Amino acid sequence: MARKRLIFNAFVCPSPGHVKPGLWPHDLPGNELADFDRLDTWIRLAKKLEEGRFDGLFIGDVLGLYAPYGGNWDVFVRDGNRFPMLDSLILASTLVPETQNLGLILTASVIQDHPYSLARRIATLDHFSEGRVGWNIVTSSTENAHRNYGADTIVNHDERYEWAEEHVDAVLKLLEGSWEEGAVVRDSARRIYADPGKVHRINHEGRHYRVEGPLIVHPSPQRVPTLFQAGSSPRGIDFATRFAEGALLLNSLEGAGNVISGLRQGAARHGRRPEDIKILAALTFVVGSTEREAKEKWEQYEDLMNHEALAAEVGGNIGIDLSKLDMDDPIDYSNAQGGIGKIIAEAKKYRNGVITKRQYLQGVARETTIVGTPEQVADRLEQWQDAGIDGVNVMNYLIPGTYHDFVDHVIPELRSRGLAQTEYSPGTLREKLFVEGPHLNRRHPGYAYRGAFTAPL
Amino acid sequence: MARKRLIFNAFVCPSPGHVKPGLWPHDLPGNELADFDRLDTWIRLAKKLEEGRFDGLFIGDVLGLYAPYGGNWDVFVRDGNRFPMLDSLILASTLVPETQNLGLILTASVIQDHPYSLARRIATLDHFSEGRVGWNIVTSSTENAHRNYGADTIVNHDERYEWAEEHVDAVLKLLEGSWEEGAVVRDSARRIYADPGKVHRINHEGRHYRVEGPLIVHPSPQRVPTLFQAGSSPRGIDFATRFAEGALLLNSLEGAGNVISGLRQGAARHGRRPEDIKILAALTFVVGSTEREAKEKWEQYEDLMNHEALAAEVGGNIGIDLSKLDMDDPIDYSNAQGGIGKIIAEAKKYRNGVITKRQYLQGVARETTIVGTPEQVADRLEQWQDAGIDGVNVMNYLIPGTYHDFVDHVIPELRSRGLAQTEYSPGTLREKLFVEGPHLNRRHPGYAYRGAFTAPL
Repeated sequence: MARKRLIFNAFVCPSPGHVKPGLWPHDLPGNELADFDRLDTWIRLAKKLEEGRFDGLFIGDVLGLYAPYGGNWDVFVRDGNRFPMLDSLILASTLVPETQNLGLILTASVIQDHPYSLARRIATLDHFSEGRVGWNIVTSSTENAHRNYGADTIVNHDERYEWAEEHVDAVLKLLEGSWEEGAVVRDSARRIYADPGKVHRINHEGRHYRVEGPLIVHPSPQRVPTLFQAGSSPRGIDFATRFAEGALLLNSLEGAGNVISGLRQGAARHGRRPEDIKILAALTFVVGSTEREAKEKWEQYEDLMNHEALAAEVGGNIGIDLSKLDMDDPIDYSNAQGGIGKIIAEAKKYRNGVITKRQYLQGVARETTIVGTPEQVADRLEQWQDAGIDGVNVMNYLIPGTYHDFVDHVIPELRSRGLAQTEYSPGTLREKLFVEGPHLNRRHPGYAYRGAFTAPL
Repeated sequence: MARKRLIFNAFVCPSPGHVKPGLWPHDLPGNELADFDRLDTWIRLAKKLEEGRFDGLFIGDVLGLYAPYGGNWDVFVRDGNRFPMLDSLILASTLVPETQNLGLILTASVIQDHPYSLARRIATLDHFSEGRVGWNIVTSSTENAHRNYGADTIVNHDERYEWAEEHVDAVLKLLEGSWEEGAVVRDSARRIYADPGKVHRINHEGRHYRVEGPLIVHPSPQRVPTLFQAGSSPRGIDFATRFAEGALLLNSLEGAGNVISGLRQGAARHGRRPEDIKILAALTFVVGSTEREAKEKWEQYEDLMNHEALAAEVGGNIGIDLSKLDMDDPIDYSNAQGGIGKIIAEAKKYRNGVITKRQYLQGVARETTIVGTPEQVADRLEQWQDAGIDGVNVMNYLIPGTYHDFVDHVIPELRSRGLAQTEYSPGTLREKLFVEGPHLNRRHPGYAYRGAFTAPL
């Protein structure tokens, strides 16, 4: 059976540690994590990704330290786990002249930028990159992030999404509504750069923002960057199904089906088509020329990781400070928050639902990791495709090593099965992922703002 | 007499029009203004500037349309005069991998970014560029800009500077105070990326911002970008003499002396040395192989410019709508604001102080333009140097033409007189301009925050 090609992004953070903390100090082939603050590291990675015809570089972000671990942040700082973390907008921008086809998907939180600033910077970047920008919309889930931006404490979850809706709404008005189609005339003979009759104030007034407009940047190739989101709560999924064109799936294969159908149904509920959202599973790969080689490499990585740093991070995600527990102590998850479904599901695999700290960490490591020969990896990706995903955000143990392994060994096997593209499609990032042209399609809420403002400037 | 070398920056805006509006439509050699939204235009310009050993690319900015002209913004939009205007942070970032020595001086207004976002992005850019970032601090002087960022109307002048002081203060705390010297250990053997005992919250609390910290980015080569400012009011000059390491001078040669001594005295008043501020005159050059050729070229540029667009812009600067006047009508400047000193000085040259719109526009064009052979230009720059400047922000009629003329013809003459460097000095932008190393010197207010925060994280 001929298979549809999958979308592939590299999912990275400009930090010494992300998802698999503690590997930066180790002398391993392909390990340049300690050089995350050197641009050259990222330029060479981006070129390798283009060699493998990856769709995008998906740059994650956080705006502050995670929840404390044992009352302080020592383990994060000492290990360099998501701290330091460089800015994704800057990283995406610096890679523009060094790449031709790679999508540059940056993360920007709604608490981070005024909509006017964000719309303008993204539009500028979309001009310079000729339409290769993606925006991963996040709301920031750590208290320190919110306290860095003036709040007393973290803004509560649902309120963050309400804020996010207004933020995105204002950005969409600026990008779609400020300049009508055809406003840029650029007529040298008549000496008219733009038609003042087709440029408009957007006069946004909401709970968080007032924005007069018009945006000072003319429409870029995509107008609106390709929109990504990773919400997994009911409120987050509702947001994603309304706005996102790419949704990140942070589940195991067993748990994926329900979430995928929820996303597709949600899109339909918002007047969109199920296929208007590309669903991308976040997965890590360890590849070897034999299964044994792959497993040994995996074991080596897992052994070298900093397990306390991982415990600090995943504990923060479920709202439990795991610092008090030894590795073989059971976790009391009766008060877990956030990812509670995940720990319950994981705990069900053990007798009486009792799961130790070690077992939980191992489960986290296992659930989204695919280990094997290129053929085994491809087999597994076929199962994921059958479960309904459109593509993969490829996480890493090592930068650039994980991506070299993937491009050199997995991509050829995927290509032979039709699962990976051999050449880039022409056009913008949106056109590379969808068939309906460079702009938001008619079913997206942002489309309503195109031509919506008509008052003279 | 051996002369000290001058600093040279190219002063540009990513817009079809800036300072000399209306030239983009014309088929002139070296005119790529219409391609301001193509990155390639800027990459080739940046490489030419490095060929000429320019110190920096100084990227100007505005955050909204100027004051209306005749009740609307048509002339700005139709002419493309500072509208569209792309984002300077993005332009600076995209040029990093294409340049090795050029300073990248971006403009960011205090109304535009939260201090945490700005500090983080600038620090990231300073890492990736290995210390080549400059920040031109502005406060935004147009009503539309302030209304794009939530205000009812423009925040008044002195209040903007109060805001600016808090904004800069918070940025300095984040960049200087979050990470002590030696906090980054990066010890692979001991698996310590950073020492938690040397990383601190900064807990800024002010009228406009509350920021917990620490900054999530470790100290970059310069820690704080080299700081520029262009204030010309008493309040603006006070701000500049407190914080700026480079001050922009927007005066004629006759008027320059007083401003220069005011800046140097102001620096001393704030506990700094007169030479702690590099004073940069904003000047435009038209060069020819003979004086006549240069003058003819100048006349051609001036003829082709859009004089109504210029009138809209300079009228906005002095708070007078010049749209009602014909070119030979006298200007009633009794209610002028802002640049009132300039129009009075200019008017004094005419009988009874009566100055027409045409005369005023010509005066504006003349006062900061140097026209002649390379030798004449160099002679004139010697006069400017004798008046006390340290360097020049070279404005342009054409991009890249004005800079090609300057690099190919003026720079060699300046080098023969010792007025222009033949090679770059090593190190960061700050080290290229000053002798005291990559960081703020001890006399700068930001220095006080180094090691100032000591509480455990």
